[in-house]
Amino acid sequence: MYKVDLNSDLGESFGCYKIGMDDEVLKHITSANIACGFHAGDPIHMDKTVKLALKNNVKIGAHPGFMDIMGFGRREMKISKEEVKAYIKYQLGALNSFAVSSGQNIQHIKAHGALYNMAAKDYELALAIAQAVYEVDKNIILLGLANSSMIDAGKEVGLKVASEVFADRAYNSDGTLVSRNIEGAVIHDTDLAIKRVIKMVKENKVEAINGKYINIKADSICVHGDNPKAIEFVKNIREELIREGIEISCINEVIK
Amino acid sequence: MYKVDLNSDLGESFGCYKIGMDDEVLKHITSANIACGFHAGDPIHMDKTVKLALKNNVKIGAHPGFMDIMGFGRREMKISKEEVKAYIKYQLGALNSFAVSSGQNIQHIKAHGALYNMAAKDYELALAIAQAVYEVDKNIILLGLANSSMIDAGKEVGLKVASEVFADRAYNSDGTLVSRNIEGAVIHDTDLAIKRVIKMVKENKVEAINGKYINIKADSICVHGDNPKAIEFVKNIREELIREGIEISCINEVIK
Amino acid sequence: MYKVDLNSDLGESFGCYKIGMDDEVLKHITSANIACGFHAGDPIHMDKTVKLALKNNVKIGAHPGFMDIMGFGRREMKISKEEVKAYIKYQLGALNSFAVSSGQNIQHIKAHGALYNMAAKDYELALAIAQAVYEVDKNIILLGLANSSMIDAGKEVGLKVASEVFADRAYNSDGTLVSRNIEGAVIHDTDLAIKRVIKMVKENKVEAINGKYINIKADSICVHGDNPKAIEFVKNIREELIREGIEISCINEVIK
Amino acid sequence: MYKVDLNSDLGESFGCYKIGMDDEVLKHITSANIACGFHAGDPIHMDKTVKLALKNNVKIGAHPGFMDIMGFGRREMKISKEEVKAYIKYQLGALNSFAVSSGQNIQHIKAHGALYNMAAKDYELALAIAQAVYEVDKNIILLGLANSSMIDAGKEVGLKVASEVFADRAYNSDGTLVSRNIEGAVIHDTDLAIKRVIKMVKENKVEAINGKYINIKADSICVHGDNPKAIEFVKNIREELIREGIEISCINEVIK
Repeated sequence: MYKVDLNSDLGESFGCYKIGMDDEVLKHITSANIACGFHAGDPIHMDKTVKLALKNNVKIGAHPGFMDIMGFGRREMKISKEEVKAYIKYQLGALNSFAVSSGQNIQHIKAHGALYNMAAKDYELALAIAQAVYEVDKNIILLGLANSSMIDAGKEVGLKVASEVFADRAYNSDGTLVSRNIEGAVIHDTDLAIKRVIKMVKENKVEAINGKYINIKADSICVHGDNPKAIEFVKNIREELIREGIEISCINEVIK
Repeated sequence: MYKVDLNSDLGESFGCYKIGMDDEVLKHITSANIACGFHAGDPIHMDKTVKLALKNNVKIGAHPGFMDIMGFGRREMKISKEEVKAYIKYQLGALNSFAVSSGQNIQHIKAHGALYNMAAKDYELALAIAQAVYEVDKNIILLGLANSSMIDAGKEVGLKVASEVFADRAYNSDGTLVSRNIEGAVIHDTDLAIKRVIKMVKENKVEAINGKYINIKADSICVHGDNPKAIEFVKNIREELIREGIEISCINEVIK
Repeated sequence: MYKVDLNSDLGESFGCYKIGMDDEVLKHITSANIACGFHAGDPIHMDKTVKLALKNNVKIGAHPGFMDIMGFGRREMKISKEEVKAYIKYQLGALNSFAVSSGQNIQHIKAHGALYNMAAKDYELALAIAQAVYEVDKNIILLGLANSSMIDAGKEVGLKVASEVFADRAYNSDGTLVSRNIEGAVIHDTDLAIKRVIKMVKENKVEAINGKYINIKADSICVHGDNPKAIEFVKNIREELIREGIEISCINEVIK
Repeated sequence: MYKVDLNSDLGESFGCYKIGMDDEVLKHITSANIACGFHAGDPIHMDKTVKLALKNNVKIGAHPGFMDIMGFGRREMKISKEEVKAYIKYQLGALNSFAVSSGQNIQHIKAHGALYNMAAKDYELALAIAQAVYEVDKNIILLGLANSSMIDAGKEVGLKVASEVFADRAYNSDGTLVSRNIEGAVIHDTDLAIKRVIKMVKENKVEAINGKYINIKADSICVHGDNPKAIEFVKNIREELIREGIEISCINEVIK
């Protein structure tokens, strides 16, 4: 039986500032990556999002990022391994309080934005993240870009890992994502995007931008809930996956 | 057998900014209140302080405050009960990651600065704090000003509570602290301060500023580690307490 | 000839977080209060908003608030007079750089949120704000709640002052705003709101919540640009004012 | 007549956190670089430092940095040119309010920490900084590392520039500073450091780490006021420079 998880970044609102259609997207996904107050989110929204996920039977995950709310965690920062470890622990623990208060566990963790992208390529950075998670709770699953350093580091440290794929992004032949600056990096054709994802889930293959097929593990698909069109896409992809006989399950079930 | 705990506020350094002689004061106390990054402290210093406390066999506690590092959490802020609860949970969880990473539990929690003072008088605020703690971990001891709303709220919620006393502060006849703006609020005579503390521990009595004796429970004495003179005072008070046959134990032991 | 200014709070977006229909509301107002990065706004949005105001021939003003972006400056903070002065100067200067870069002057300043409300009642606080402005630039007009301490303090210090009125808010018989917690505090009937404003501008009178008429100076009317309905109201009020022979001019022109 | 300026980074205290012996070092220097609240400093300390500089007849300069008080502005951040420009303007304007309040002008600006180092090598970044300054006030002198991109960018934009040298740092043969990670990067021999500086001022030459002499312009020497030993060094260097017939003057005078 084929299985795949649908994950989305949630709880990114901050104070009076609202972002995301969390209520809507939660109806269709199985795992929620919740911002922890460094690059987005705040204690009030973390609490709300945890409860909302629980209500929708969606598993919760920590979504730690750089301490840069003005840049939404999308700007690279050169910080030490010691700092990365401490920042990951801090954010993970903060979210855990809200999970515990609601009788839940944190299922997974996924780095955000620039930290995610840097850790996908920088093994030492990825190792620092993985070690931080392991030292706090070795049962938390590390969700990272398929074929990236993050996955290697998670395994090395002894964590369970899950490979994330993107429906709407092109891949290089080495398995990395094509940079958004390059033409063709984003796949706008919804049907094509969905076909690619199905192939990733069923055959563990994707056609790279140079036309060659590469191996890719697809435990979880990243989807967005920023706008009505994105919500529509999530519904679509979910329906198509089910039609193809693929079960939509939380990461925990997928990687069993 | 008389027992009392010595507690001190630690881990208040922030980035390059250093405050406190933590190394020194940890040799003499039994419980450490560790800043959680809102009014002071940062992930790096939280990690260091937890490890340093462990090394000195000192129990760790969370020391949450208002989100106001520029004002060191000493400025009153009007925030909602919902916000207080969320902020307490966030900070408590953040510290817990470092505790867990070092194989420790959080023994207690004590509000900081303006939040401490406001919660000593505002029962609803105190209740919000106590509820937040209870929802995260009902085994954490709530340390609050003796005779204050904080103690009442902790009991009401079902938490274990510990009463904190101050060696160098005058008390009003209703058990509250004399405001620092009033003459005689701070007791500068070290011998007198120590005598008062011994009386509080052994007889549960203290002479209020109007000359009347009032009842006071003394589970833990607040001491400081800001400067060499403060360290000297901690050594002094510790020696005198022991000489009087009072055992210096962590809060956990004292309130058993 | 009757004259009145229409002012609105703008530039409140922060990083990726967008708030307000600034582009729309700027077409209808004469003075813009621009957030300065403490309670809302950031350097990028300050720059954009200054340029957008210039393009729309709208005068710019500083809109300083408490350093509390998570609470949008709506939460009371107890800070010293020295701190208030320094915070006002800092924010005013920051905005001035963007004004100067665009060849503009800052026409006015208006405190935001909790700071506005506190300074309307606390003369000492209002005085600190007024002094800060005066020490930086004595030509800047202080915009404050009509009949409030802010107006008194501005005059005392030697600043030009402008009285702000609210179309959709009820007034107490002493000229203060009826608290939002009290029924009838907000006037939902658009026609009534506009009639009241016209009376304020032409006769300097408004009917208080107890039915008595009180004196009120109306140099500037506060309008909002948060949503399409608010924009509609701004258009409406503007048209009605003009129909009544009232000229819509910037504060500078109104108080000449 | 030889002339040189002595500059130092001041006003780096933040809230309750104190750094630097500003009172002491101000007695010996001619230009103060004042932190503007992004990487260090706060409105209260900016105000105090401006007044203290004035009292000591020391010229004031802005010392803007990355928005990263936890990292003291020493961590590289990848931000856009548009962001750099806006952040520089914001900080420059903020400081200007305090300068103006004290009847002073801002003499110069010098980027801090990671921003300084990055702009020394990245011409586009340096250009963004220089343009920001020029657009706010074209009379402000841009102080940057001698022989660096900062100097080139300042000239290109039309600003007056001043070249900064370091007494205690080794230089590469291309005029850049030897990285602190390399042995010999810091010169610990005080006499040697002073001799090198005198040669830089009088002959515009310095011996690079490879033994070759390179050209270097020395308008201003960077000195520190962190600790008593640093203060002692400042006194020493000042005396020796005067003994050599070199006049210690503010940047403004030196580059005339």
